Order: sequence, then C-alpha cells, then structure tokens
Amino acid sequence: MKEKLSPLIRKHLIDVSPYQPGKPVEEVKRELKLDDVIKLASNENLLGVSKKALKALRKYLKEANYYPDDSCFYLKKKLAKIHDVKEDEIILGNGSVELLYYLVFTFADESVSIAYNKGAFAMYPIVSKISNAQIIEVPLKKGNLACDPIAILKKIKENTRIIFLSNPNNPTGTSFTHDEAEELLKNVKENTLVVFDEAYTHFVESENFPDSFSLYRRYKNLIILRTLSKAYGLAGLRIGYLIARPEIINSLNKVKVPFNVNRLVQIAALHALDDDEFVEKTKKLIKKEKRYLYKEFEKLNLFYLKSDTNFIFVKFKMKAKEIFEKLLKRGIITRPLPESLFPNALRITIGRRKENKKLISALNEILKE
Amino acid sequence: MKEKLSPLIRKHLIDVSPYQPGKPVEEVKRELKLDDVIKLASNENLLGVSKKALKALRKYLKEANYYPDDSCFYLKKKLAKIHDVKEDEIILGNGSVELLYYLVFTFADESVSIAYNKGAFAMYPIVSKISNAQIIEVPLKKGNLACDPIAILKKIKENTRIIFLSNPNNPTGTSFTHDEAEELLKNVKENTLVVFDEAYTHFVESENFPDSFSLYRRYKNLIILRTLSKAYGLAGLRIGYLIARPEIINSLNKVKVPFNVNRLVQIAALHALDDDEFVEKTKKLIKKEKRYLYKEFEKLNLFYLKSDTNFIFVKFKMKAKEIFEKLLKRGIITRPLPESLFPNALRITIGRRKENKKLISALNEILKE
Repeated sequence: MKEKLSPLIRKHLIDVSPYQPGKPVEEVKRELKLDDVIKLASNENLLGVSKKALKALRKYLKEANYYPDDSCFYLKKKLAKIHDVKEDEIILGNGSVELLYYLVFTFADESVSIAYNKGAFAMYPIVSKISNAQIIEVPLKKGNLACDPIAILKKIKENTRIIFLSNPNNPTGTSFTHDEAEELLKNVKENTLVVFDEAYTHFVESENFPDSFSLYRRYKNLIILRTLSKAYGLAGLRIGYLIARPEIINSLNKVKVPFNVNRLVQIAALHALDDDEFVEKTKKLIKKEKRYLYKEFEKLNLFYLKSDTNFIFVKFKMKAKEIFEKLLKRGIITRPLPESLFPNALRITIGRRKENKKLISALNEILKE
Repeated sequence: MKEKLSPLIRKHLIDVSPYQPGKPVEEVKRELKLDDVIKLASNENLLGVSKKALKALRKYLKEANYYPDDSCFYLKKKLAKIHDVKEDEIILGNGSVELLYYLVFTFADESVSIAYNKGAFAMYPIVSKISNAQIIEVPLKKGNLACDPIAILKKIKENTRIIFLSNPNNPTGTSFTHDEAEELLKNVKENTLVVFDEAYTHFVESENFPDSFSLYRRYKNLIILRTLSKAYGLAGLRIGYLIARPEIINSLNKVKVPFNVNRLVQIAALHALDDDEFVEKTKKLIKKEKRYLYKEFEKLNLFYLKSDTNFIFVKFKMKAKEIFEKLLKRGIITRPLPESLFPNALRITIGRRKENKKLISALNEILKE
C-alpha cells in the first residue's frame, strides 16, 4: 500500500517537514506526570486574555451556530481606522501564519524565487518549500542576529517575487532599522513583494525601528503582517492580518479559505483592539521583567540578546538541548532552536515575576550541577 | 500601479472567483434597515449550539491566551473511538472546507485531473481551479440531481488524481447509494483518491445511503470528510475532519497551517461530540419540519427534491433571483444558486416551525402577487 499511495504527493512536497510547535503544557503534564508546569516556549501573554475580549466572548458564545461573516466587515472597519488605511487594504487570517501560506500560494511557484534570512522565522523555509519556489537564504546580521535587508538586497535576483523579513526577528528578538528598511525598499524592483512580519511590534524598545506605515504609504510593494496573539493575548484564538495594496489583497482573496476567521474570534478581536488598558499593562510587565531577566542572566554569566519582543534569546556554554531537557524535568517548557543554526541557544518567553523566578532558580541549579 | 502589481499573481489564479457565502443577518439588517431578519441560507442549526459545548467554552475561555494543541490530541482520540479508526488516520480542519484546499495543494497540479459533478458543492470548481489541475465536469444524475459516481467513472482519465463527491449533495440535498459508491471504488484505480464529502449525514433518510466506513476499511483510496457545523451547531467555530490512510494524512500534514484549529474550537468540539441529546433533538426537528415544509410546498404547487439534509432544493416557475429578492425584502434570507446551473431554484434551510411559517406565509404572498 505504501508503495501505491505515497508517490501521489506532489514531488516537491516529499521532504517538507511540518512546523514543530512548542510543547503544550497538557502534553508535558501527561508525559512527565508533572502537576505544576509552566510554559515559556511560545511567547504567549501570561497576563491572560484581554478582559474586554472575554466579556464579549461570554456574551456572544451562543451565536456560534451561525457562520462567521466571511468579509470580517466590522473587524476590517476597526483595523482600517487604527492604521489609517482602507478596508480593501486588509485581509484577515487564521493567525498571521495562515497569511504566509496565502502569500506563497498566490504569488510563488517554481518560476520565481523567495528570499529570507536563515535563522529568521521558522515558517519562511517551510512555506517557501511548499510553494516550490527557488530559495535564497541570506545570513542574519552578524552580532545582533537581526534580519538583514541590505544583505538580502545584494543577493536577490531578477525573479525574486517575495522577501520575508521578521522584524523584530523571531527567534532572536532583534530588529533592523528604519533606514535599512528604506534602503531595501528604495532599491528593490516594484514587482518584488517585501513582507515586514511584525508580530512583536508592541514590545519594541530599540530606537530607529521602522515606521512601517509611513513606508507603506510610499512603497506599493510593501506588505505588513500583524497578529493579535501576543500583546492582546489571543494566541489560542488565531487572528492575524495583512495590510497591502487593494490589488494584492484581491489576489490573496482568490486563495482565501471561506470563513477562515471564526465568529468568536472576530468578536474577541474587535473588543481586544479597544482594550488599551490590557495592552499597556502587558507592555509594562514585559519591559519590567525583561530587565529583571537581563540582570539575572548576567549574574549567571549567560549571553543574551537585548530583546524587542516578549522573549529572550539566551546562549549557553553547553548544548541548549541539554538545558531544555533539564528545565523540562523541572516543569519549565522553553523553546530549543534548530541545532544546525543555534546549537547553544534557547528562546525563552518573558513571564510574570512568578514564572521568571522559577526559571532563574532552575537555571541556577542546572548550571551549578 | 495596477499594471505593475496585478500580473504578479500566478496566471492560472487570475480568473478564480472567490466563494460567495450566504448573506449574513447583520449585513441584511444594516443594508435593508430591517430589525427582524431570519436566515435560511446557510444550513445552520437553528436550535443553537450544543449545550455541552457552550458549558465547556464558558469554562475554558480564559485560556485563549495559550496556543492550541497543534496535534489536536484529545479530539483525534475521541474521533478515533467514534469511527473505529486510529488517530493517525485523522486530520482536523478549520471547517471541512479547509481540508479541500489541503487535498488539492497536496495532490494536484497541472499534471493531473480532478473530477466532480457540475452542480455539486460550489467549492469543488474553486479549489480545482486554484490547483491548476485539469478539470473533468460530469452532469448530476438526471431526476434527483444527486452526485453520480457511475457517470464520473465513465469520464475519468488515466491521470485523474481526485474525485470529489458531495453526498448528500449540497445544494440539491439528494444522495447516491451504497451500491453506486462501491461500483465506483471497485473500478477506479488505487491512485485516484475518492473523496466522500459527507457534511449532512446526520439528516439522511433515504435507504441505501453508503456505509462509508465499511467501504473505507476495504478501499485504501477512499477519503471521508465530515463536519461539526450542522448537527452539532458549530458552524461559527469552523471545525471539520478528514479520515484517510496514514500515508495520506502524513502528506496532508505537510501543507497544514500550524494551529489551524483554535483552542476554543477544540474544546467545543470535544464536548459537542458527547452531546447525543442535542444531536437527537436536532435530527427530530429537521425530520418533522421537513415534512411540514414538503406539505406546504405542495399546497403552493412548488416542485422540491426530497432531502437527505437540513435544507430543501425548491424550484419556482419564475427566476429564483426574483423570489430571493422578494423574500429578502421581507427579512428572510435564502440561498440563490448559480444562474447557469439552477436558474429557478433556491436552497432553503429548514428552520424551526416559527421560521418555516414565516417563510411559507411570505411565499404565499409573493406567489399570489
């Protein structure tokens, strides 16, 4: 049977490996028979869900028997107002990650190339491979390991259709600057789509971070991706959005799965976007706890990168996988990174003081073993 | 600008038209300035959402800040038990419609063909076109307008990779038989995937409806699609699933969007699947109201097809679009069908007695004008 069914898959998909998500808390509890497990692996908001979103969800739960509004009328209206764009410059996704699939399915095939930095968001190699496009991988910036628009500019080809840039970069937490962004946009051809994937903008502290919307007004091929997973605490609900020129949005709508953003998610997002108080509280917590962790990492003599996100890229003197396993046994889930790229680093979500203390105390134990 | 950005789209996508969903209640209220609007357009469950699902949703809402379990561990476990298959024979989708996209992205391109009946589920032409596969369209069965496996069998080619069969058929509500299903499976090559898209099985009344799972055990290329949108009242949450051999599931997982089934949906589905009481109540209502509507349509001298679903295909002596518009003005949303295929027919969801009476009284007025 294997012989007959396996070759049915399109050939270029055979060696695609699906994305490996952070271990869910439930799985660790089940497998390690632990009761007290904390997850610092997936950059979730440990303050919970926006209260305004929760209240609206409670009110509208019972309408879940009705299909969602496929056009996301009210949500687009709100986002258009927030970002000062038109409704027809927005498409919503089942998480911003779904929109990466829409981008490659709409614009890429074997006749074009896709460029990104090796060590940027792990989904770029996956969606590029799925699209069967030629792949141009360019190193991250030396030193801060941010994405590097200038290095990419030097490597792209005549047929480069999409450039993916994760800014701040997941998993390193660092950013490129406004000037670098503009340098790329100024010099790239208009038929190369430049995607600024900005999941973590709420947590940016570095100066000179790109003002993407001012660039967007001037460069027609700039595409901006955002999510409500992080600052708004909606990771479990899956909601992201993409801003681009109407022609691009029209094209993406041709491959959009009908009703991809569910009814409850639309309601939650609509109300979360009004919840400035929750976002401010989140930002304040991350800023404060970032500094606490920096200090503690320094005491532990650990190398880390100053982060523009709600996670920190930390380097160890031994294989990160070992640290990961030892933390896991103590009920702390962190995120190991691809061994070929970052053999000694973990990506660790910034929690509340409670979780951060547990982490630091466990690291203290482990590093002194 | 148009000149520069438009041609970026992959050529075969240019003339894809996105799916046109039924009009949302909110939109009709907004546009027609009506307060009292009922929707009989999208085959939603008018009894609401499974109570068990609602209770679980209320309990777990506040965990929506955590990513979903990408593997859908507990949901797969439950479905495996229900259908007597293994967990690795299941993939979950953001609605069963998302799984149609996964099927074509995984198995179809310009080198293969896809076959379906013209007048079956409106998504088959769309996903087939998106995949760039060659398309084989075969007429529905004469008379009852069900999908026709035997007619398809006669038209498929050496390179036919996927056959889509909507059973019972949306939008006609009618079914093919077990013998016809088996006749197709017996004669089709094993490298042609046969998809039984069974969104409405809970409402089947006709005898000899295929026992898909007994066929599935014998035919390795049979794929079964199901949804929780209808009988379980979860249309707004988007959850469907696909049963197939592990090799096929593995292949589909390569194009699966990470976290495609959100956290709340997994919880709702898990509990809805236990809610036999709600499903029985729904089935009983539909059975009873179907008969009420049949009788009323007969009094109105309207042709209809006996339905295996929670909707009825009704034919008028004038253009259906006119009836649709007149019903809309009276606050009743029904579903017009593609004019080139069914110029005189509407697809009307079976509601509770309240909604059905409103519909019949409006039709009485309209047809006597």
